[in-house]
Amino acid sequence: MFPEYDVIVVGAGHAGCEAAVAAANLGSKVCLVTMNMQTIAQMSCNPAMGGVAKGQIVREIDALGGYSGIVTDHTMVQFRMLNRSKGPAMWSPRAQSDRMLFARKWRNMLEEHPNVDFWQDMVKGLVIRGGVVRGVVTSMGLEIPGKAVVLTNGTFLNGIIHIGEKQLGGGRAGESAAKGITEQLVELGFEAGRMKTGTPPRVDGRTLNYDAMEVQPGDENPGKFSYTDTPPITKQLPCHVTYTSTQVHETLKTGFDRSPMFNGRIQGLGPRYCPSIEDKINRFADKDRHQLFVEPEGWDTCEIYVNGFSSSLPEDVQYKALRLIPGFENVKMFRPGYAIEYDYFPPTQLEMTLETRLVKNLFFAGQINGTTGYEEAACQGMMAGFNAHLAINEQEPLIIKRSEGYIGVLIDDLVNKGTQEPYRMFTSRAEYRILLRQDNADLRLTPLAHQLGVRGMEERMERVQVKEASAKAIERFLEEYSIAPEQINQYLESKESSATRQKVKLSTILLRPNINLDDLREVVPDLHQFLQAHTQECVELAEINMKYEGYIRKEQELVNKMNRLEEVKLWDTLDYHALPSLSKEAREKLTRMRPRTIGQASRISGISPSDISVLLVHMGR
Amino acid sequence: MFPEYDVIVVGAGHAGCEAAVAAANLGSKVCLVTMNMQTIAQMSCNPAMGGVAKGQIVREIDALGGYSGIVTDHTMVQFRMLNRSKGPAMWSPRAQSDRMLFARKWRNMLEEHPNVDFWQDMVKGLVIRGGVVRGVVTSMGLEIPGKAVVLTNGTFLNGIIHIGEKQLGGGRAGESAAKGITEQLVELGFEAGRMKTGTPPRVDGRTLNYDAMEVQPGDENPGKFSYTDTPPITKQLPCHVTYTSTQVHETLKTGFDRSPMFNGRIQGLGPRYCPSIEDKINRFADKDRHQLFVEPEGWDTCEIYVNGFSSSLPEDVQYKALRLIPGFENVKMFRPGYAIEYDYFPPTQLEMTLETRLVKNLFFAGQINGTTGYEEAACQGMMAGFNAHLAINEQEPLIIKRSEGYIGVLIDDLVNKGTQEPYRMFTSRAEYRILLRQDNADLRLTPLAHQLGVRGMEERMERVQVKEASAKAIERFLEEYSIAPEQINQYLESKESSATRQKVKLSTILLRPNINLDDLREVVPDLHQFLQAHTQECVELAEINMKYEGYIRKEQELVNKMNRLEEVKLWDTLDYHALPSLSKEAREKLTRMRPRTIGQASRISGISPSDISVLLVHMGR
Ligand SMILES: Cc1cc2nc3c(=O)[nH]c(=O)nc-3n(C[C@H](O)[C@H](O)[C@H](O)COP(=O)(O)OP(=O)(O)OC[C@H]3O[C@@H](n4cnc5c(N)ncnc54)[C@H](O)[C@@H]3O)c2cc1C
Ligand SMILES: Cc1cc2nc3c(=O)[nH]c(=O)nc-3n(C[C@H](O)[C@H](O)[C@H](O)COP(=O)(O)OP(=O)(O)OC[C@H]3O[C@@H](n4cnc5c(N)ncnc54)[C@H](O)[C@@H]3O)c2cc1C
Repeated sequence: MFPEYDVIVVGAGHAGCEAAVAAANLGSKVCLVTMNMQTIAQMSCNPAMGGVAKGQIVREIDALGGYSGIVTDHTMVQFRMLNRSKGPAMWSPRAQSDRMLFARKWRNMLEEHPNVDFWQDMVKGLVIRGGVVRGVVTSMGLEIPGKAVVLTNGTFLNGIIHIGEKQLGGGRAGESAAKGITEQLVELGFEAGRMKTGTPPRVDGRTLNYDAMEVQPGDENPGKFSYTDTPPITKQLPCHVTYTSTQVHETLKTGFDRSPMFNGRIQGLGPRYCPSIEDKINRFADKDRHQLFVEPEGWDTCEIYVNGFSSSLPEDVQYKALRLIPGFENVKMFRPGYAIEYDYFPPTQLEMTLETRLVKNLFFAGQINGTTGYEEAACQGMMAGFNAHLAINEQEPLIIKRSEGYIGVLIDDLVNKGTQEPYRMFTSRAEYRILLRQDNADLRLTPLAHQLGVRGMEERMERVQVKEASAKAIERFLEEYSIAPEQINQYLESKESSATRQKVKLSTILLRPNINLDDLREVVPDLHQFLQAHTQECVELAEINMKYEGYIRKEQELVNKMNRLEEVKLWDTLDYHALPSLSKEAREKLTRMRPRTIGQASRISGISPSDISVLLVHMGR
Repeated sequence: MFPEYDVIVVGAGHAGCEAAVAAANLGSKVCLVTMNMQTIAQMSCNPAMGGVAKGQIVREIDALGGYSGIVTDHTMVQFRMLNRSKGPAMWSPRAQSDRMLFARKWRNMLEEHPNVDFWQDMVKGLVIRGGVVRGVVTSMGLEIPGKAVVLTNGTFLNGIIHIGEKQLGGGRAGESAAKGITEQLVELGFEAGRMKTGTPPRVDGRTLNYDAMEVQPGDENPGKFSYTDTPPITKQLPCHVTYTSTQVHETLKTGFDRSPMFNGRIQGLGPRYCPSIEDKINRFADKDRHQLFVEPEGWDTCEIYVNGFSSSLPEDVQYKALRLIPGFENVKMFRPGYAIEYDYFPPTQLEMTLETRLVKNLFFAGQINGTTGYEEAACQGMMAGFNAHLAINEQEPLIIKRSEGYIGVLIDDLVNKGTQEPYRMFTSRAEYRILLRQDNADLRLTPLAHQLGVRGMEERMERVQVKEASAKAIERFLEEYSIAPEQINQYLESKESSATRQKVKLSTILLRPNINLDDLREVVPDLHQFLQAHTQECVELAEINMKYEGYIRKEQELVNKMNRLEEVKLWDTLDYHALPSLSKEAREKLTRMRPRTIGQASRISGISPSDISVLLVHMGR
């Protein structure tokens, strides 16, 4: 009944959707198998994409031809660029989406792809012959043959929902858990573990008093995620901010003895940086309030997401505590918060391509690799989709370096360090932050996608070239244009910058602190006229290139040095136990993790610089 | 945690949504409890509302202030008035909706209602004290207190999905079944049974060849369902028609031995008039083809509903047979058809208000009463919602007579005759068809809703009055306006109607066959000018009133006669076994069914006219 597909993707969450698109955009025939076609691209938790470090990932996905950015642009109800006041490495786009429209748009975009077929069914096992995956078996008893399989089961594998002392089976509230896959993989020798995550209650916006909260509007000049010409948002919905109090905390504490978090009923570790409210008041006992973001779920629904109030306390305790929050005095709940425990597979069992080491052409992506977050899931899906296509066509894999993208950092961290708790991205995880900015993801990555032959990349590549050329032209103008003291000193004074005695190049002025191009163009008409021929995006890029030139160069040098280590491959057959100069720990870890390069080896925790030297010598460097 | 609600509605399908609105529109505080807030108002099967007899029901729901018509008007992709070539009693509006938008619009309308609260959870039992329902208990272990409860669980109670030889638990594909409620009710003394229904496969519209099918466009002048000023549809999507063949039938037959329908695995009876394709080729063995409607699921999805191909044969058989259908040569499936078996409660256990006889303030509505179809479910929900409110406020119940609406026919049939197989509405079930037209549901029912105090009925009542007055004025004009032979004879001739020798009233002309007002106004300028002040709706009403006057009068007389029987109440304490002149069957059935009036008694199967005479005499008539 089914043709043999090139790539079968199991699950249509964020990872699965991007995996399907990635493989399909390289020309693979893809079958997307998911339990319920009505829940394609559901946002399990808050209806927002991006945020610190995550926004950069969405930009990177877009630069590589993924759809997450485009879908978000089309469905957002609010956009904010976080950390605008910090350096450009920290700028992070974040958008709230209309939850239903987000899912609808994703589904439409998938349907429009001629290479993507759909099958609604639950996958309960894999077909594996001779160590190679050959397809999947579904709960209808069907076998779908495929050359490669990408598993993206999210929180569904043996999912258990906890609310207070109650436990319900499920992959998300109201949806079934998936059984069978973990068991089969464990039998094959895979290691599996348990993790947990949580979600806050949803409440009835009609019962909130917004006057008691602070308004948080969207940006005045909202940006967007995609480098393509998605339409900018013209109307926005506000969010609101309110706070817990000691009273709220005391009320929550009355439920601690019935909390699955504290009485040991939940074994899996939860995301440290996305803690539940009970976790927060427990860990930060001295803080007498926590901030809450009151976020709409869409354009015309009254359902509200209480960001920051994730909880698995008994629902009556959640309710009582909510009612003590300013603006929430009369709140009604639609659904309580809950925690969910699920199976994951420690990602050290993967290659850098996200292929499993044990089964050829089987890829894992998303939450099942121990991550948390839509963006983390989506980018893994995309990389697994690309690499599944490349593997079955015996082409070189696509591996993003740590210096090329947060995606590279994420996968490298997962595969080489593993993770004990749900992994989420932070800017601090990247060593080359000034290179990995949200504004230049296209410059960094679109050429890779173009070279790979991703569908639709010609036009995008042209945009990248125009952007680079345009920024260069602006830089050149600033370096060549001299300005007289009488033209500029008044402005410099107003910025508390020392006056100049002689003519100076504009570029010199720009390098000073407090000075920026937007102001400068106001006082230098020639500059303004010149810049008018260039987009704001290019002006910003030129400015960053010039103002941060020193940092950028320094990081680039580090990268080059590191890349040399990255290029030194470690043979598959290398016997680390035969290298007595290695520390014992290094011998063991290297044997277990089998890094592919000395670069990778250097990032395994417990491997010291002297171990690296031993390896370099051994490899003849 | 919860206040005591006036009315708790369990399930947010078509019945549940209308129940919530009806009670809320009378002023009750309502809690709508449903398993998954993402699936509110899901259309389980085809994305269409209305059709023969069902269209009339939607109009009636609208006339009583329900939302099904409004939601459909806002979300339709195609509208057709079926049976236009037959008499106006048969005209039946039908619309295809965008499945996702339909659900979204319903949810938004519910959210906009200040009296409707929501709770996402599975109800697993009822709280009953002293024979009165007091609330529900959920799978989270919560008790929600309420003065009345309306159960609308649809196909979810112990639902089992069948595909070929495979069985899966579920209330719809991809959704969980609900357990506990049936068991509790049976323990309380309720009778429960099993029924089944089915759905066709969904296919990928991108793989169809529409050139090989007939196009079925929407109406040129599309109508709508609501009597309010919902926007008329301006753009429509076409459907397509294709046919099975003996080849298709032969292929399907190869799966009969694995069919749960034929090998006895399904015990519940299915809807006779919505049969599966295997049922059709089995029962009508002489027919060598069956018509199939190829219907889009929405504006911008490629998912297609294959109307007429409902099946629970093994999916590979469905697939092979589909591929033999003209236009389907390369079809890909998204999900196979399946059958579902579920619990229902024989509706003879209900009062005419849909309250259960065993438990006070507990109401049943929708599929669990043994019906099939969205419209049948929705109107029951509405009536249960109204009557739940009225019951807890100790007001007179609202019972629609058989002569007042299809809704009355439906409930009267269910309660007094029961049903052995899924009950769907047909025009033939109504004895007063010419009274129960789609065009006059507002005249029939809006006054009832207005009198009841349903929210927002003032404006609607004004519309009704204008419509009636307007039709009257048109009738009077036609009765008074005389026309000369030379003005009309040419037209009469063209219509093969005999010429007239003298001046005649326009009304006399209109009564002739082949003559209609639309033509007549073309040849009588005065008439045209007069009619221009009236809407098309009123013109049609006047025309029907005049042309069908004889039929209308005759039916009205029958109604009056019947109503006299309807008025003769039968005491609760009447001992039928003490009436020896009754037939044995009558004594038994009357004792079991306990009809409230002689009219009701007369419609119980097995009760003869002579039994009715006995009852009349006994009651002193
Ligand atoms: C309750 C909850 C709270 C969360 N809270 C947070 C948070 O606070 N912060 C944060 O960053 N992230 C949070 N997350 C995580 C975030 O939702 C996930 O990281 C992200 O959705 C993972 O994407 P994914 O594609 O890996 O999986 P999912 O989005 O879970 O998608 C999995 C998909 O696979 C399908 N599927 C699963 N098994 C099968 C099968 N056997 N056969 C067919 N289909 C299958 C499912 O139907 C679903 O479509 C939360 C998730 C949940 C459920
Ligand atoms: C597979 C299938 C095929 C069908 N085919 C046809 C057809 O060909 N022709 C036709 O006319 N009709 C058909 N129908 C029937 C049509 O869908 C129903 O008649 C109609 O939807 C019934 O409406 P309802 O409101 O009674 O129930 P449903 O629409 O089934 O809604 C029930 C609601 O209750 C919720 N629910 C159930 N139990 C609980 C609980 N314990 N706690 C909380 N919430 C609960 C569910 O989540 C759901 O929202 C079919 C239905 C199915 C499932």
